[in-house]
Amino acid sequence: MGLTEIRNVCKVSLDIPAEKHEKLHNRWHPDIPFAGTIKNGETVKIECLDWTGGQIGNNDSADDLNNVDLTKIHYLSGPFEIESAEPGDVLLVEIMDVQPLQEAPWGFTGVFAKENGGGFLDEFYPTAAKAIWDFEGIYCSSRHIPHVKFPGLIHPGIIGCAPSAEVLATWNKREGELIAANKLDRIVAQPPNTKNAHAGSASGDIKEKIAREGARTIPGRPEHGGNCDIKNLSRGSKVYLPVHVPGAKFSVGDLHFSQGDGEISFCGAIEMAGVITINFKVMKNGMADLGMKSPMYLPGPVEPHYGPGRYLTFEGFSVDQHGKQHYMDVTVAYRQTILRCIEYLRRFGYSDYQIYLLLSCAPIQGHVAGIVDIPNACTTLGLPMDIFDFDISPTGPAKKLDMGSCAYPTGVKEGEVTMGGANSEISWGGGLTYKEKQ
Amino acid sequence: MGLTEIRNVCKVSLDIPAEKHEKLHNRWHPDIPFAGTIKNGETVKIECLDWTGGQIGNNDSADDLNNVDLTKIHYLSGPFEIESAEPGDVLLVEIMDVQPLQEAPWGFTGVFAKENGGGFLDEFYPTAAKAIWDFEGIYCSSRHIPHVKFPGLIHPGIIGCAPSAEVLATWNKREGELIAANKLDRIVAQPPNTKNAHAGSASGDIKEKIAREGARTIPGRPEHGGNCDIKNLSRGSKVYLPVHVPGAKFSVGDLHFSQGDGEISFCGAIEMAGVITINFKVMKNGMADLGMKSPMYLPGPVEPHYGPGRYLTFEGFSVDQHGKQHYMDVTVAYRQTILRCIEYLRRFGYSDYQIYLLLSCAPIQGHVAGIVDIPNACTTLGLPMDIFDFDISPTGPAKKLDMGSCAYPTGVKEGEVTMGGANSEISWGGGLTYKEKQ
Amino acid sequence: MGLTEIRNVCKVSLDIPAEKHEKLHNRWHPDIPFAGTIKNGETVKIECLDWTGGQIGNNDSADDLNNVDLTKIHYLSGPFEIESAEPGDVLLVEIMDVQPLQEAPWGFTGVFAKENGGGFLDEFYPTAAKAIWDFEGIYCSSRHIPHVKFPGLIHPGIIGCAPSAEVLATWNKREGELIAANKLDRIVAQPPNTKNAHAGSASGDIKEKIAREGARTIPGRPEHGGNCDIKNLSRGSKVYLPVHVPGAKFSVGDLHFSQGDGEISFCGAIEMAGVITINFKVMKNGMADLGMKSPMYLPGPVEPHYGPGRYLTFEGFSVDQHGKQHYMDVTVAYRQTILRCIEYLRRFGYSDYQIYLLLSCAPIQGHVAGIVDIPNACTTLGLPMDIFDFDISPTGPAKKLDMGSCAYPTGVKEGEVTMGGANSEISWGGGLTYKEKQ
Amino acid sequence: MGLTEIRNVCKVSLDIPAEKHEKLHNRWHPDIPFAGTIKNGETVKIECLDWTGGQIGNNDSADDLNNVDLTKIHYLSGPFEIESAEPGDVLLVEIMDVQPLQEAPWGFTGVFAKENGGGFLDEFYPTAAKAIWDFEGIYCSSRHIPHVKFPGLIHPGIIGCAPSAEVLATWNKREGELIAANKLDRIVAQPPNTKNAHAGSASGDIKEKIAREGARTIPGRPEHGGNCDIKNLSRGSKVYLPVHVPGAKFSVGDLHFSQGDGEISFCGAIEMAGVITINFKVMKNGMADLGMKSPMYLPGPVEPHYGPGRYLTFEGFSVDQHGKQHYMDVTVAYRQTILRCIEYLRRFGYSDYQIYLLLSCAPIQGHVAGIVDIPNACTTLGLPMDIFDFDISPTGPAKKLDMGSCAYPTGVKEGEVTMGGANSEISWGGGLTYKEKQ
Repeated sequence: MGLTEIRNVCKVSLDIPAEKHEKLHNRWHPDIPFAGTIKNGETVKIECLDWTGGQIGNNDSADDLNNVDLTKIHYLSGPFEIESAEPGDVLLVEIMDVQPLQEAPWGFTGVFAKENGGGFLDEFYPTAAKAIWDFEGIYCSSRHIPHVKFPGLIHPGIIGCAPSAEVLATWNKREGELIAANKLDRIVAQPPNTKNAHAGSASGDIKEKIAREGARTIPGRPEHGGNCDIKNLSRGSKVYLPVHVPGAKFSVGDLHFSQGDGEISFCGAIEMAGVITINFKVMKNGMADLGMKSPMYLPGPVEPHYGPGRYLTFEGFSVDQHGKQHYMDVTVAYRQTILRCIEYLRRFGYSDYQIYLLLSCAPIQGHVAGIVDIPNACTTLGLPMDIFDFDISPTGPAKKLDMGSCAYPTGVKEGEVTMGGANSEISWGGGLTYKEKQ
Repeated sequence: MGLTEIRNVCKVSLDIPAEKHEKLHNRWHPDIPFAGTIKNGETVKIECLDWTGGQIGNNDSADDLNNVDLTKIHYLSGPFEIESAEPGDVLLVEIMDVQPLQEAPWGFTGVFAKENGGGFLDEFYPTAAKAIWDFEGIYCSSRHIPHVKFPGLIHPGIIGCAPSAEVLATWNKREGELIAANKLDRIVAQPPNTKNAHAGSASGDIKEKIAREGARTIPGRPEHGGNCDIKNLSRGSKVYLPVHVPGAKFSVGDLHFSQGDGEISFCGAIEMAGVITINFKVMKNGMADLGMKSPMYLPGPVEPHYGPGRYLTFEGFSVDQHGKQHYMDVTVAYRQTILRCIEYLRRFGYSDYQIYLLLSCAPIQGHVAGIVDIPNACTTLGLPMDIFDFDISPTGPAKKLDMGSCAYPTGVKEGEVTMGGANSEISWGGGLTYKEKQ
Repeated sequence: MGLTEIRNVCKVSLDIPAEKHEKLHNRWHPDIPFAGTIKNGETVKIECLDWTGGQIGNNDSADDLNNVDLTKIHYLSGPFEIESAEPGDVLLVEIMDVQPLQEAPWGFTGVFAKENGGGFLDEFYPTAAKAIWDFEGIYCSSRHIPHVKFPGLIHPGIIGCAPSAEVLATWNKREGELIAANKLDRIVAQPPNTKNAHAGSASGDIKEKIAREGARTIPGRPEHGGNCDIKNLSRGSKVYLPVHVPGAKFSVGDLHFSQGDGEISFCGAIEMAGVITINFKVMKNGMADLGMKSPMYLPGPVEPHYGPGRYLTFEGFSVDQHGKQHYMDVTVAYRQTILRCIEYLRRFGYSDYQIYLLLSCAPIQGHVAGIVDIPNACTTLGLPMDIFDFDISPTGPAKKLDMGSCAYPTGVKEGEVTMGGANSEISWGGGLTYKEKQ
Repeated sequence: MGLTEIRNVCKVSLDIPAEKHEKLHNRWHPDIPFAGTIKNGETVKIECLDWTGGQIGNNDSADDLNNVDLTKIHYLSGPFEIESAEPGDVLLVEIMDVQPLQEAPWGFTGVFAKENGGGFLDEFYPTAAKAIWDFEGIYCSSRHIPHVKFPGLIHPGIIGCAPSAEVLATWNKREGELIAANKLDRIVAQPPNTKNAHAGSASGDIKEKIAREGARTIPGRPEHGGNCDIKNLSRGSKVYLPVHVPGAKFSVGDLHFSQGDGEISFCGAIEMAGVITINFKVMKNGMADLGMKSPMYLPGPVEPHYGPGRYLTFEGFSVDQHGKQHYMDVTVAYRQTILRCIEYLRRFGYSDYQIYLLLSCAPIQGHVAGIVDIPNACTTLGLPMDIFDFDISPTGPAKKLDMGSCAYPTGVKEGEVTMGGANSEISWGGGLTYKEKQ
């Protein structure tokens, strides 16, 4: 007899608070107890909550996003013991499938308020906003962003093995130094924080130690991957993960139905609760054998594909919206590239917030194009035209359609939403104004 | 009768110095005289010199690169008058083909010396190096980087219309401010420079004015594109270019047989002399109609394609080689991603300089993955495994092959070449050393 | 609130005999009662039995295939009433997803005995054989055909609307004429047969009439599609189906986890029980508007893709294995093409029956290449090399691996299985023998 | 120094009659003298005439096609001696590039008159017709079929090594038997014919022998490939050819700028004079090592690609236009599939002849879908929608455009051209008429 059922090693319930699940945790720490054991070579299913642990509802208000508690996020499933894995090995993780939970065929994309989370364009779009996505098989669509439908490039936002104590100490030190040196008027990193720390089944002193020392889950980190938010880590991918502790202590979570390169609105993927099916193999001594310091992967063969000629592609450079020249700054260039795309799409009747949400979660291709032509980095953004049910190709003036509205906090309305406040009168380039009043 | 021949509007000679060609120029300025007139709707051929204007030879020494004169580069073909084009229009440029010159079926990829040009990894690889590529139809291969062969994603590095006087003034002002504020120990931008300025057929006062004011050609710029170095602007692409002056004054040059995302070694594409076939169409009032401030494009349908599962993909984060945490810096992350790939490939016997050259010109995919997970930006680099004639997939320890050597300046030998001097003992991450002695 | 659950309009049970399900039927007839009603615009789930109605087991014997009862097959789910659909309309069926039943993550590929079903190569391979496939997410693999794994191009083998009485009469007449004129030593078509006819919820006279007149389900037919067995009618496809009766009477079944072009062994796909998610839209007057007589479709964007260079492609011509020249016969040519591939793959240690099974179900590409160069039709078969976990590229002599065995009927063993009996000493082409003794 | 120029081993002149070229020949025979010698490992250029040897002109009349002399075709370049190649070896032919002759950037697609050549649909379209295609870089377009433009999937129609005397005898015997047994009212194969035989540089008795025995070039043949007309044997392909005589005697010709699967109108590709660049490698003992009897190949990575969802796909079955049921006849099914596509496209204003020409040369995908569901074979035809400059997707009634006319023989006009004579009132399926009067 062959395979009859794939073992489910982590069941989650949408009706029980995230922090009550013993097989979930929201810190990276080597001392979090194992949530179960998986054989070398085994394929298992692992259920995951959405990254907010259920704070966001399937409704038409963004109040929940506006008031989200960011200490209560990233409840990861695990950590799992992978038999025979030891430090220096590589854990070969093959993502056999990712699916939404059958009882919750929907997800959400959000913009956080600038003062509570923010995002890549919060200087322009400081207000919270939300789009709910309905899933029908491989496709998703949203009542908040009409006239688009696309297949999910479904993937986990977070995947990785636990740090060793040494690696953890390195993280806390280097991020602490960044925080200490910060002169920006914004939060640049999150230090360990005991508030709402969830250490799985740990209790007592161990739990306290984890809460006190445990690395926050927001950033991906080079030594283990973690919250890398790579949209192409999708079905069929083989991911090669460094192992730092005995048994690997593998965790996964933050499942995305879809995401664009950059996940620009921060809560930018189509966030969902779901189940991931993974095959695990241990490559003994893999880190040395592969000369590997950060994760690498081979994508799967089933990514949606449209043909290169179906991507309308925007260019951006490291000159910011105030006309200031930056030196080889890809971050600045990518932000400008996105703004060019927003300017283009708003001609069809979408609001900027709708587009910001859409570009966060649709499978846009963000490339580093040129990075050596001083002083301008150049990046590109490829927008798949086939996700729209009308023609967006550049043939002339656009006809505006009725695009409804995305969800906003109570009291905010489409057309009246704040657009960067006093900053909205920004000029660009050779005296051209880049953003009109709507 | 139908088409019998396509008009060639710019012939170049490899036997005549670049600066003697009246249809070439190496500055951006609205006053450079027209090099010819092209009808709206017409398809023409335009020949171009390689970007160094012929300074680099098909030989096994990198002395030419080491001593390159960077004031004598980017001899662009044009500017051409496109009939009926006016400021505010969009010039739709369809790239029908790009080919090397029949009499010169070869190109080169170079690393400049750190003190004379440098590149994205010059902190690590300060010595000049070179690889010559032979073209056989769609394929290229190099005696300096054995065991690779790939089809060209052939394209122009530079394409754009002349700036207006107002746009030009904006460029000079904002780049001048960057230069004035520079505190880095490196050149951050190139101001106008009369040395070796070539203003096409201009003479006398006009020529002097152009030399004095003309924008340098190294950076791409948002208002017109220019040296965007986008590898996917290849055969079949439709490029939408803003028009700033009457007649458009279109120029093109810096043809590349192939390039990787970032063109990381600066002289990083496979540089060549060649001929580009272009169809021109004017879209009246296109800038307003398309809401366009920077160029956009639709790639062509004939890009080489390997299937997503054939790209071995490396991850990198904004923690630099000294273990320092940077805040959301994609530039830092992309550099780290490349280093991860170099570490991987050197296991097969390639030298770091060979890999640096290869990743500059092979069609690697550089993506912005996550740009919101403070403090770490995450980027990926996809390496097409099928360009190698041996298996590079991550299956275990690598077997070293005899990889010969790339070309170096006189006196420098593979195995003895400088690798970052005192900086080579760099540590990375959790106490791991990132670059062993070879 | 948005979507919370997708309505399941047809549940099946693997524990209840197929013929006891009132929402299943195994004949095409306009009088089969509706199994339910679906709104125009609605998305629903429809469960389906495997095409043998559960006759085949997950075990290591092919006795079940050897003794299969071919009057008890193709229990289709339906027919469903689609609100507002009328004759002359087109039913736009969008396949949102296809999945195996969660409780049965496996399928089978079979070769029927020549005297009980046969297949495209039964002259060569007259013995029954079987391979069981295990599903892990998007991937399948088989203990009976080692060293292959591939993602499913999952699809329904049968999809269509009921014939009108007139269309049904046409079918019975033209197929009856073929049967009457048959001089081949094999069954060429199946006339109506009351044995084991299942007419859904019909009873009494209606049931008898359906059994007596109902068209068999084996062939696809131009007027409605039916058992077209098109591997690319997969997830994301939009299928345009002619409507012949009020309410459309839509049926679907015979789900395949994967199939190669031709489905050559007849029971050749990876047959499975599963659930299909479909969105229905009615295009009023669609047949006339689209000039449509047979179904057409737009494939979805998520087909597995490997890049063209990863398909090892075999050529075949309309000269049969006896060296006889046929005139422009694509059927003969395609059979020869497959034999060329079998000869190639057996070098690696696979038995011919294993390869026959594999080429039936793996996503091979079978193309009509040249169909005008008298007297030889030319066809090609593209074999994706990446489904093997070893290198099958044509580099020299092959190394045989231990390939185990597929399942055979009791008493038959790998290495002793019949290979075409007296016909196995066949010659080919210029005196070359095409099939050696093994 | 590296490569400077690629050796051209066969120059052709469009101003000299084909039969005057000593390096061309139009028969397959082992005794045709070598036209030159190529080293094992060498890359060379080989120029070729178009397949009619220049009989067809770039004009707006199809008189030349109507009166074509089919004994004066297929002037192949060669045969070339490949050093060290011996019978039993495999010649690995890598197609580095194919280009039109620079002085002739155009090609043609033709329909032959039914009584002089015919084609796959000559029962429906018995009149000669022609379309001229202009080449601009990778793209082609035609004044005779407006509103389409596509990149060439450029390839040689004919490629192969000479037969041995034994293989040649086999060909002549088996095709002679077909001719002898023919009862169809059409020519089924072409026996050797001395008329206009061109044996390269042979003279005297040898020339006479070749003319008397030499196999005609129309059909591809399993033992060597020859006129296989496989559209995907394009740039970058590696073709593995059996060697039957010492030195291989490799020939190539009949270059196509583009072709659809089937090359249905016989003169159906975009025929052109051009130059092919090939690298040759000898695999000693390759036929036995690879278990190879017919050619195989690996396509190149640069095929145009549109994404699967951009192919509007038609289904056809083996029921002919008279409503007659055929038994598993893929040839019949493919013809029906094409007719379905013609019916669809004529709604936009194209004439049937224009569509017949277009489907012959555009890169349509013709697949064998199901070949086991007695009695109906099912085939599909995928039409890339992106080759049209208007939207052909199935959304409702079509708007007719002004489509001009293809070229016809003198006296024939669009709208009055013969459409199958008395056969045009053909019925189809369940009483539906399949082809209306226009």
